[in-house]
Amino acid sequence: MVGKLLTVVFEPDGRRVFVSAGMTILEAARRTGVGLRSECGGRGVCGKCRVIVRDQHAVSDITDVERKHLSKVEIECGYRLACQTRVLKDVSIMIPLESRLESIKILTSGFERIVNLDPMVRKVYVALSKPSLTDVKPDFERLSDAVGVVEIDYDVLKILPNILHESNWSVTVVLYGDRIIGVESGDTANEVYGLAVDIGTSKVVCHLMDLKRGETVGVGSMENPQVIHGEDIISRIAYASSDSRNLHELQKLVIDCINNILNGLCGKYGVDSGRIYELLFVGNTAMHHIFLGIQPKYLALSPYTPAIKRPINVKAKDLSININPNGIVSTLPLIAGFVGSDAVADILATGIHEFDGNALLIDIGTNTEIVLGGRDGMICCSCASGPAFEGAHIKHGMKAVSGAIERVKISRGLEVEYSTVDGSKPRGICGSAIIDVVAELFRHGVIDRQGRFNKNIEAQRLRRGESGIEFIIAWASETGVGYDITVTQKDIREVQLAKAAIYSGCSILMGKKGVTEKDIDRIFIAGAFGNYINPENAKVIGLIPDVPIEKIMFVGNAAIAGAKMVLLSKDLRMQAESILKLINYHELAADPNFNNEFMNALPIPHADINRFPSVKELIIHPNI
Amino acid sequence: MVGKLLTVVFEPDGRRVFVSAGMTILEAARRTGVGLRSECGGRGVCGKCRVIVRDQHAVSDITDVERKHLSKVEIECGYRLACQTRVLKDVSIMIPLESRLESIKILTSGFERIVNLDPMVRKVYVALSKPSLTDVKPDFERLSDAVGVVEIDYDVLKILPNILHESNWSVTVVLYGDRIIGVESGDTANEVYGLAVDIGTSKVVCHLMDLKRGETVGVGSMENPQVIHGEDIISRIAYASSDSRNLHELQKLVIDCINNILNGLCGKYGVDSGRIYELLFVGNTAMHHIFLGIQPKYLALSPYTPAIKRPINVKAKDLSININPNGIVSTLPLIAGFVGSDAVADILATGIHEFDGNALLIDIGTNTEIVLGGRDGMICCSCASGPAFEGAHIKHGMKAVSGAIERVKISRGLEVEYSTVDGSKPRGICGSAIIDVVAELFRHGVIDRQGRFNKNIEAQRLRRGESGIEFIIAWASETGVGYDITVTQKDIREVQLAKAAIYSGCSILMGKKGVTEKDIDRIFIAGAFGNYINPENAKVIGLIPDVPIEKIMFVGNAAIAGAKMVLLSKDLRMQAESILKLINYHELAADPNFNNEFMNALPIPHADINRFPSVKELIIHPNI
Repeated sequence: MVGKLLTVVFEPDGRRVFVSAGMTILEAARRTGVGLRSECGGRGVCGKCRVIVRDQHAVSDITDVERKHLSKVEIECGYRLACQTRVLKDVSIMIPLESRLESIKILTSGFERIVNLDPMVRKVYVALSKPSLTDVKPDFERLSDAVGVVEIDYDVLKILPNILHESNWSVTVVLYGDRIIGVESGDTANEVYGLAVDIGTSKVVCHLMDLKRGETVGVGSMENPQVIHGEDIISRIAYASSDSRNLHELQKLVIDCINNILNGLCGKYGVDSGRIYELLFVGNTAMHHIFLGIQPKYLALSPYTPAIKRPINVKAKDLSININPNGIVSTLPLIAGFVGSDAVADILATGIHEFDGNALLIDIGTNTEIVLGGRDGMICCSCASGPAFEGAHIKHGMKAVSGAIERVKISRGLEVEYSTVDGSKPRGICGSAIIDVVAELFRHGVIDRQGRFNKNIEAQRLRRGESGIEFIIAWASETGVGYDITVTQKDIREVQLAKAAIYSGCSILMGKKGVTEKDIDRIFIAGAFGNYINPENAKVIGLIPDVPIEKIMFVGNAAIAGAKMVLLSKDLRMQAESILKLINYHELAADPNFNNEFMNALPIPHADINRFPSVKELIIHPNI
Repeated sequence: MVGKLLTVVFEPDGRRVFVSAGMTILEAARRTGVGLRSECGGRGVCGKCRVIVRDQHAVSDITDVERKHLSKVEIECGYRLACQTRVLKDVSIMIPLESRLESIKILTSGFERIVNLDPMVRKVYVALSKPSLTDVKPDFERLSDAVGVVEIDYDVLKILPNILHESNWSVTVVLYGDRIIGVESGDTANEVYGLAVDIGTSKVVCHLMDLKRGETVGVGSMENPQVIHGEDIISRIAYASSDSRNLHELQKLVIDCINNILNGLCGKYGVDSGRIYELLFVGNTAMHHIFLGIQPKYLALSPYTPAIKRPINVKAKDLSININPNGIVSTLPLIAGFVGSDAVADILATGIHEFDGNALLIDIGTNTEIVLGGRDGMICCSCASGPAFEGAHIKHGMKAVSGAIERVKISRGLEVEYSTVDGSKPRGICGSAIIDVVAELFRHGVIDRQGRFNKNIEAQRLRRGESGIEFIIAWASETGVGYDITVTQKDIREVQLAKAAIYSGCSILMGKKGVTEKDIDRIFIAGAFGNYINPENAKVIGLIPDVPIEKIMFVGNAAIAGAKMVLLSKDLRMQAESILKLINYHELAADPNFNNEFMNALPIPHADINRFPSVKELIIHPNI
């Protein structure tokens, strides 16, 4: 309403933010994502948010609270508490080393991002003064004044008097943001854990995180046991919709699965599950709804609207998740009925919401989410690409586990070189190798642009199988299964359908945003592939737009990386919410161009060869 | 920080408030307690907070939101929405009739107070637009935008998609403050109920309230079944402390008791218990802790600190209270270990926190709470007065129920006139009559200042009973029990102990505050007496300070009246919290003068007769 904006510059980084007069330096720092410590959340209790202000006339007068935390000499040097000091004029603020939040690198396959270690869950050890007839403050108010928060979980309140008396008034308070969710006897401040969970349609992945140190303690995963009720989302939704007990059965399956992974991790790494205070999960919208026990029925019915988009928190005990019963199960926001919080986590992990230019993010799975854009706005869609790239619906397909062929090279003489996950004898083919095979067969003219086997080619590895022509990747004698591992005509059809769904999604988003291949500065490919997909081959089959190889980056399971970042950093959690304002969802089912785009994307690489100039050469001179 | 305070005057009442520049008119109105409608809580959604601002230069410019809700002519006449309009200069605001909250009179024995009907629980009927492929807003966000709140109960969220689809997008939203706690099919906005509960040590009282109309639907009460584990607080605390199962047993007893009263009320008045959305209870600190399942052990151990003072909310289903499972069980703040939320409710009901002068509030029960002061500050204490005035520990004592003698007059010839509750044959004596009897016996010289029977008096009604002298109030033949109803020497001792405890509490508070009888402008006597205690007799026995009769007001169960007001008015709930800042607790157990004051208060009316000038005459010329 009132007044012009002031400029605050944070040194030594030089980050700049525009604020209204009267805002505290701490708030200003938070807006920029500058990592400034504040253990009490800005209540003048902890004294950790020390900053140096050279021009004291540009800020409010020093307060009694500050005098309590700062020495006379420090005050003379310009030290202030950021939570107590309000900005009155343009000002430059120095953040000394001791006030900076530790920075943590989040690594995933092929890239890393740095986040400030500032988790929502934190612990504070306090030695309280004992009550007396001259100090009759109630237990909660005594604790609340010491840690500077005013909310407490009812279940914690119930046991508070006993814990305080029995621990002789020395306790560790567990805080979730501004709320007390636990009080433990003595000093347990070193044990603070969180669990990042990616609930995929086919796989559940958990990373156990040490929130005090910002480190990954261990990783566990299991097949999503809901698969017994259908391998794709639509089958699960149909099952959940037919009877309310079915929804609870699906919910229980995934909760039990998480608890199993959790117990395994806790046992293996010697972590007390009662010291895990947050489970943050990401997943597609259907997985999100089912996990929370929300009827997913309407996700499968036009117009496919979810029950809720904004993040929610549920108590662990209400979901029977075996972390601390007063711990929090939290979510990231959803984007739409078929673009879930996994896509938000992908965006956070790759940082495309801060990307200066146009990034294209493709998270390949049974459903593939595609995001196009950058800091100035993003557009996204979902395509039903099917599970071919996860190894399903492929005759000898398998997940990227031990024995899966993950890379394939075919020579001019149609001889095959392959490598398997962990080097053991081949048992089947996973998604990355399927892409290689189709690209290589096309490269050598073994299949044509329509994906048909060229009947004119004679080769030992080409034969007529039970259901048409097939190409032998590994001879029975080389394998761990005792039969030839082949790629069939039907397999190639599955790949074509999958890649056409994904490419047409990309193409429609590019059209909506008015960008061409030239305007794309970066392609991020995410997904549960074993390790890596060959970007050249992805282009050859027409899975992704034809951009120079150096712009393509394979980022693996970016969703879990994003979830981990959010567990570790409140700032990232806020970014997750702001992403929703930056992104628009485009419903492919309602797009009049979709069918046409899809049909055109079925050939290899595409009906319009001019869209793939780097592949054009191969067509003119196939590598026979 | 910035700028001087501005004056806002609300017409037609002329209420005045000082605010910082930039505050909305709605916020300013709330600070004064001016009853201004706002069904969306200030989000510009409902358009109900219409006010007239004559000087448009004194406020912020009109917004698009206002243009949506106000006609052109209205805007020309100076109409504005209070939630959208910010105060920039001193200004006078007219609240038109349609924007005023309905005022409700809360009646209790002998006095009434007026509150604005603005309950925490409210219902809003909304007919939502259906989602479509061009409007894919999720269910919750669709609802949230319509009612202007952003929080939803997880249990409600889980059923939201089904309810919205099945009710064809026309639903009634139940709001508790800024949170959605229910969504019901169709229009149920007329059915909004709340329950005010006073959990006394000996009696549980429930008032079923229609929150839409501000009316009392019905009243029910029962003996507190915890009495099987001791009739006083200390016995109950001892029982609860000895085993954690005992605490839960006591908790269950009172919860079952409330559920029983509730079921009776719902049956009798045809109210669906699922349409009761809030239970607000008051009680002493021990009752509060036990009802909430908080260990009360430390309330009985010096320094008698409670677990928490500030109000808390618990979900009804977490306490197994049979109102709507997502309904809220709420509390008022506590003052100290022995001054509970019942005292806060007493203060609210009598309004002494707004009293200009010194009021003395005495809530007589097994524990008696005493508050002295007014708007400029209050002091309070608790005294263990015992249950004599509730009819216990008295040979023929009983509660003020059918057949209880409630008034007694003794003539010069020691003949007795009495009246009973509902006029039936006497079965015993209740607290108000016990006071009468002791006062009358003293008045006629039958007992002396030490409370001893005067052995020199001969009368038919005076006789030596099994345990010393006793006075016959009703002959066996007149009674409904078939034996003489008497008052014994021991009974008089019990009354002396009780009144000495109460008077010494009053006296110590008066001393702490530096006020004498002359400075007391009003005495409020509250408690579960049948109807009324005779203030003259209360003075004669030395129960209350000697102030002119017209300053003494009997207010009955003020605690439940206060609870009802809070159910009906958010403003009163805020006042309850601000009372805590106005009041200081004085621990009698730690007061060095207590024993002396208590000893001096044992005689009738007091060892220092000059404190009771109006009784002095009686001593010189007893009414023999």
